[in-house]
Amino acid sequence: MTNEKVVLAYSGGLDTSIIVPWLREQHGLEVHCLVADVGQGAGELAGVEDKALASGAASCEVVDLRERMLVDCAWPCLRALSIYERRYLLGTSLARPVIAEAQVAHARRIGASAVAHGCTGRGNDQVRFELAYQALAPDLTIVAPWREWSIRSREDAIDYAAEAGIPVDVSKTKIYSRDRNLWHLSHEGGPLEDPGSAAPDDLFLLTVDPRDAPDEGVEIELGFEAGVPVSLNGTTLGPVELVETLNELAGQHGVGRADLVENRLVGMKSRGVYETPAGTVLLEALTSLRALTLERDTARQAERLAIEHAELVYTGRWFHPLREALDLFFAKVTETVTGTVQLRLYKGSVTPLSTTSPCSLFDESLATFEESDAFDHADATGFLRIYGLPGRVAARVRSEQAATTGVS
Amino acid sequence: MTNEKVVLAYSGGLDTSIIVPWLREQHGLEVHCLVADVGQGAGELAGVEDKALASGAASCEVVDLRERMLVDCAWPCLRALSIYERRYLLGTSLARPVIAEAQVAHARRIGASAVAHGCTGRGNDQVRFELAYQALAPDLTIVAPWREWSIRSREDAIDYAAEAGIPVDVSKTKIYSRDRNLWHLSHEGGPLEDPGSAAPDDLFLLTVDPRDAPDEGVEIELGFEAGVPVSLNGTTLGPVELVETLNELAGQHGVGRADLVENRLVGMKSRGVYETPAGTVLLEALTSLRALTLERDTARQAERLAIEHAELVYTGRWFHPLREALDLFFAKVTETVTGTVQLRLYKGSVTPLSTTSPCSLFDESLATFEESDAFDHADATGFLRIYGLPGRVAARVRSEQAATTGVS
Amino acid sequence: MTNEKVVLAYSGGLDTSIIVPWLREQHGLEVHCLVADVGQGAGELAGVEDKALASGAASCEVVDLRERMLVDCAWPCLRALSIYERRYLLGTSLARPVIAEAQVAHARRIGASAVAHGCTGRGNDQVRFELAYQALAPDLTIVAPWREWSIRSREDAIDYAAEAGIPVDVSKTKIYSRDRNLWHLSHEGGPLEDPGSAAPDDLFLLTVDPRDAPDEGVEIELGFEAGVPVSLNGTTLGPVELVETLNELAGQHGVGRADLVENRLVGMKSRGVYETPAGTVLLEALTSLRALTLERDTARQAERLAIEHAELVYTGRWFHPLREALDLFFAKVTETVTGTVQLRLYKGSVTPLSTTSPCSLFDESLATFEESDAFDHADATGFLRIYGLPGRVAARVRSEQAATTGVS
Amino acid sequence: MTNEKVVLAYSGGLDTSIIVPWLREQHGLEVHCLVADVGQGAGELAGVEDKALASGAASCEVVDLRERMLVDCAWPCLRALSIYERRYLLGTSLARPVIAEAQVAHARRIGASAVAHGCTGRGNDQVRFELAYQALAPDLTIVAPWREWSIRSREDAIDYAAEAGIPVDVSKTKIYSRDRNLWHLSHEGGPLEDPGSAAPDDLFLLTVDPRDAPDEGVEIELGFEAGVPVSLNGTTLGPVELVETLNELAGQHGVGRADLVENRLVGMKSRGVYETPAGTVLLEALTSLRALTLERDTARQAERLAIEHAELVYTGRWFHPLREALDLFFAKVTETVTGTVQLRLYKGSVTPLSTTSPCSLFDESLATFEESDAFDHADATGFLRIYGLPGRVAARVRSEQAATTGVS
Repeated sequence: MTNEKVVLAYSGGLDTSIIVPWLREQHGLEVHCLVADVGQGAGELAGVEDKALASGAASCEVVDLRERMLVDCAWPCLRALSIYERRYLLGTSLARPVIAEAQVAHARRIGASAVAHGCTGRGNDQVRFELAYQALAPDLTIVAPWREWSIRSREDAIDYAAEAGIPVDVSKTKIYSRDRNLWHLSHEGGPLEDPGSAAPDDLFLLTVDPRDAPDEGVEIELGFEAGVPVSLNGTTLGPVELVETLNELAGQHGVGRADLVENRLVGMKSRGVYETPAGTVLLEALTSLRALTLERDTARQAERLAIEHAELVYTGRWFHPLREALDLFFAKVTETVTGTVQLRLYKGSVTPLSTTSPCSLFDESLATFEESDAFDHADATGFLRIYGLPGRVAARVRSEQAATTGVS
Repeated sequence: MTNEKVVLAYSGGLDTSIIVPWLREQHGLEVHCLVADVGQGAGELAGVEDKALASGAASCEVVDLRERMLVDCAWPCLRALSIYERRYLLGTSLARPVIAEAQVAHARRIGASAVAHGCTGRGNDQVRFELAYQALAPDLTIVAPWREWSIRSREDAIDYAAEAGIPVDVSKTKIYSRDRNLWHLSHEGGPLEDPGSAAPDDLFLLTVDPRDAPDEGVEIELGFEAGVPVSLNGTTLGPVELVETLNELAGQHGVGRADLVENRLVGMKSRGVYETPAGTVLLEALTSLRALTLERDTARQAERLAIEHAELVYTGRWFHPLREALDLFFAKVTETVTGTVQLRLYKGSVTPLSTTSPCSLFDESLATFEESDAFDHADATGFLRIYGLPGRVAARVRSEQAATTGVS
Repeated sequence: MTNEKVVLAYSGGLDTSIIVPWLREQHGLEVHCLVADVGQGAGELAGVEDKALASGAASCEVVDLRERMLVDCAWPCLRALSIYERRYLLGTSLARPVIAEAQVAHARRIGASAVAHGCTGRGNDQVRFELAYQALAPDLTIVAPWREWSIRSREDAIDYAAEAGIPVDVSKTKIYSRDRNLWHLSHEGGPLEDPGSAAPDDLFLLTVDPRDAPDEGVEIELGFEAGVPVSLNGTTLGPVELVETLNELAGQHGVGRADLVENRLVGMKSRGVYETPAGTVLLEALTSLRALTLERDTARQAERLAIEHAELVYTGRWFHPLREALDLFFAKVTETVTGTVQLRLYKGSVTPLSTTSPCSLFDESLATFEESDAFDHADATGFLRIYGLPGRVAARVRSEQAATTGVS
Repeated sequence: MTNEKVVLAYSGGLDTSIIVPWLREQHGLEVHCLVADVGQGAGELAGVEDKALASGAASCEVVDLRERMLVDCAWPCLRALSIYERRYLLGTSLARPVIAEAQVAHARRIGASAVAHGCTGRGNDQVRFELAYQALAPDLTIVAPWREWSIRSREDAIDYAAEAGIPVDVSKTKIYSRDRNLWHLSHEGGPLEDPGSAAPDDLFLLTVDPRDAPDEGVEIELGFEAGVPVSLNGTTLGPVELVETLNELAGQHGVGRADLVENRLVGMKSRGVYETPAGTVLLEALTSLRALTLERDTARQAERLAIEHAELVYTGRWFHPLREALDLFFAKVTETVTGTVQLRLYKGSVTPLSTTSPCSLFDESLATFEESDAFDHADATGFLRIYGLPGRVAARVRSEQAATTGVS
């Protein structure tokens, strides 16, 4: 592939910095860096272009993907109430597809024949990137340095950088492996690799310790249209602004932490600690609003398929015919999930207080324990007789059998 | 059925009190009251036998079903992580089967030909009782006064009691409909019938308001064997003692509230507010322990079937061939769910801190981001090529199709 | 409702004939008959308008719903490969929604305030009709004579007709209860009510006995576009013509019979014998074509959801938010299910011979057992190591546990 | 591993014959052959020990696993009605676990430290073998020559045999790749690698062409106990005898062929043609018997889980905690699946005629269309009102919304 172009998903960190010279040296590629702004914060983005060029990149471009990530990926996960293994809100998983998509678009623009990423062979992200590349551009070559080179540790990487003359501003030890975007911040590695130890108090960056949160909680109101958040406290906000504001607010009250041992796609168990302040609040709110507006059988099937949707997203199958088809299902199902939810944020917990919707299926006259015309108790007699029929016949046969055979 | 015996599930409340004379007058039955002690509290049980006899019952017996309810019903729901509609821990649902079972046993003992309950035609409990009766004793006649009589409100019932000379110690208005047992306390009715209003602060009885909880949280340790809780803070406890102690502790810290609009079996939506202090903590702990000890595919299928198990329990199909078969599945699956979990209870939230197990499937050497022999990064290349194959071929065909037809 | 109009789903048979005067006499309604031509055959439709008027109907209209039934209902069931309880192709279920829809449309046109049907309280069809009415026109009153009147048998009905002066051309005994449309013919009742007896040889009307079928089978070719049949033996045909032709052909070769004990929605088991000649062939063909064109994970999820889709259709939830959302899923999933399938029909069996598609995902270079560049055997090593990892760790822990505890 | 012992799953065919010297030369292992008699036929077993020794094996043992394969593997698949991708009865998949189990047992007996198999890197069987080894004996080393050596074709293998002085009795071309056991015979490769070509008429070995089958069909009766076949035509037979007899009978009538494009575990689509005469008949019979004896909700869930069970078996996860837990589910669920089924075998088709069971849940008095006391039509009114409630409320809200917004 000598002299061909490669688009590297570049972060400015140690790993992707040494990949720049490595791609040139090992593969003879002209390296074009694509920095995805997915909300990782100004700190990480500052000077990133200079860093890329200093590392030998032929070009470096920063693209703002924050809104796209929310609208294209976070909203679909949210409206599906997708949670991986009961606790993880998929924050890293849902950023990968938009980054890969931007890389592919950039590759097309500049006529690159390859794409590269800096994920290791041990994690999920390599899969998320590569499956996205393959789905969007089956013709592009994929280079995954971590699966090729002999670098095996942070120290190796720093040594490599030194040899290559790459200016990296890091210490030889870095305790945690972190991934941050507008939706969340993940922590792995270091002391977390012992599930028998509690996550250190000083681990968290987006959320205060609930015990340090204000003694006064705060009540907020979220507005949704068709399963998608559109307003906060009565003010219509764009996706980025809404999530930023809510992250700030929920983080101040210590809301949004999750700590779990999860099953990675590549087979091993792994401890992950996540901070998803806005996402946690939005999910809780939407759970309440869906409960009010989704018809029963629909809600049940949506609950089942949320598990499947979460697995597809976690395992990198975003641009996949199945995920796309499930997304149509969820979009249809949440058409009427419109309304507002009040919640209280207080010292680490989020409590739904009240929910209203023009599409509410709650009918007080049916539910009440007081007299009402809307429901005839006698109907329940017929219902029960028919509803219970299969089990009743089965029980009768079982008891006859037991009588005959003397076995119960 | 004149002069035959009926066993009534008697609570001492207004409804079941007037059912005693009504069964005698309308059906000519000799009424035998069975009071199930499922942990509703000494207050509700005090003097209940006298009350029953004063209402005209031929006999009244109180049976302690607390341990049975926990072991036979709560534990199976817990180890399956059964939650109804994402929030309800099934507290009422799982008491009904043991009460019905005790009624049937009592009916057999005294030669009764009928059983009766005081549930209305609008709720789930009629179904839970009656399906249990039918499964256990298809030959017994079921009497459900609320679906037969003309009483339609609390006032009607009080008037009936007055006429029948039944001493009932109640006011004409009762705001909430409540159900309490050792596992939980539910609240329905009154102001809750408007999902647009927050649950009143003074509603709760088992849990303090998180804002009034101690400023110091508490850290606890729960021990499990094969998916079932066996110890608290290092002390082995029997089921009743463990749940009582944990209820007290969690309640003090405001842990265990849930507020949801749920879909009743009889079709309408209904607002339920639940307090399940111990259950909430146990479920959170077990979620952590299962994450550490369940193999991935097993965990995924268990997650799917938890939804089905919860629905069966909620909808009264406890003594049902399907629920029993699912229970065997969960018992097998949780064989190795043994270990301890530390958690912090603090102002309404429960936070898992650490988890250990002799059956842990977490292998640090596999998960670590540092160098390790246990995992060869290059394996991921082969894995990815094969794992991504179906999607890759599909993408290639799609893109060829698009090229041919000019449609994307 | 005196003097208001009702639209009756009228067939010309005994039951709906006596419903005409009954609706007038019992409910004071002006009866407008709507005869749905769903392909039940010229015999059943002949003179049906005169019959309706002679029975006292104010009007009678025949509407041709055959194409609509196929396109709106049969195709969605087909492309989902919906089969109820492993054998039933849903022929009756999928005609009901279009009939109900036509009734509602007619009611709107003539300003009727009610709709009525002639289904009994024991069957599924009452539910299918009424749920469709409710979904499409929640304001219309529904009249279900069989659940109101005292007529309990065919003899009662004939007597009622005689009294009412309705000319019915029937004998007092009718062995089978049958339902026919372009998609199928069902048989219930009579000797079929003993599952221990074989269906009589002379029961069948659309298919010859396989043993009497021609000694020469026939090979046919079906063409599909996006999961929908469009051609037979190379000739593009409209839905009605395609199904009619294929019914004839498959029927001649004895293809399309099914005999099962099924679970009715209203709880009991029931024996049904079905003839679905064209449907059976189409389903087999589409199964082959989908196998060639659907990506693996997509195919698996579609297989799961086919069970749910079939249940929704069988149980009358056609115009239901969940079924509609699932239909979007299936439509998306089958976008590329385009191609042709050759099959042999021979003495009762249909054998897929070959399948071709421009969207085929079959790649000979991958599948072959001979040398090929497309697949590197060594990839399987990495794949296997990672794919087998969760189970391997679980096995190791289990065996360590067994060693420690002495239990296996 | 020099001088250590390896247990090779030996068939006597070309591939495993050259593996014997290869294991010795490449890995310095002492090779012990284990020949599993799973019913592949006397032809394949004749002289197999001599052949092994002549190839350089240190020992060769033949073990009869036929009954074990049926009882431990085929019966569990059968009672679950496990079918892979709608057509494949899992015949190869279910033999692998017992062979691997026997290998491991042999390795323990002789103190071997390794196991080996002759499967290629392209197929499913490598996974089935290796996952079984890992589950049963995580300490044993696994050798998979096909993923190590440079042999890439049949010709290469023959050349290798010649060099090694191994007497192999084969031609350089072998059209099909076949696998045979008592349960089935599979065909892959050659002309089958074009799904657009029909399987050649002369492909089949266990079943006659339906067109050549006797003009007189045959009626048979199968007896089952708890979901497991126990008798044929009234005679109690052991598993091996029953399947052998039924294979013969069904094969004569051309019953048991399947032809599909399937998704292999390693990702590609593959054409497989299968002959499973006895299995096909047993599955059809059991489908009928289950329909008669399984309670409705249980049957539905079993239908869902059959898909999962089949996938686990196909993908090599036999000795896997999830499959084992599902098996407990199915064993429980089929406890009452006892009775007899009559079927007709005729020119390629199997037709269930009648079914009887002491545990039948069919109740004629409920199902009949004639007058009966067992079912009150009026019950259906209450049932319908409650069953339809969620959809009715949803429809009302939708129509109100449409009225308000002017959108439908």
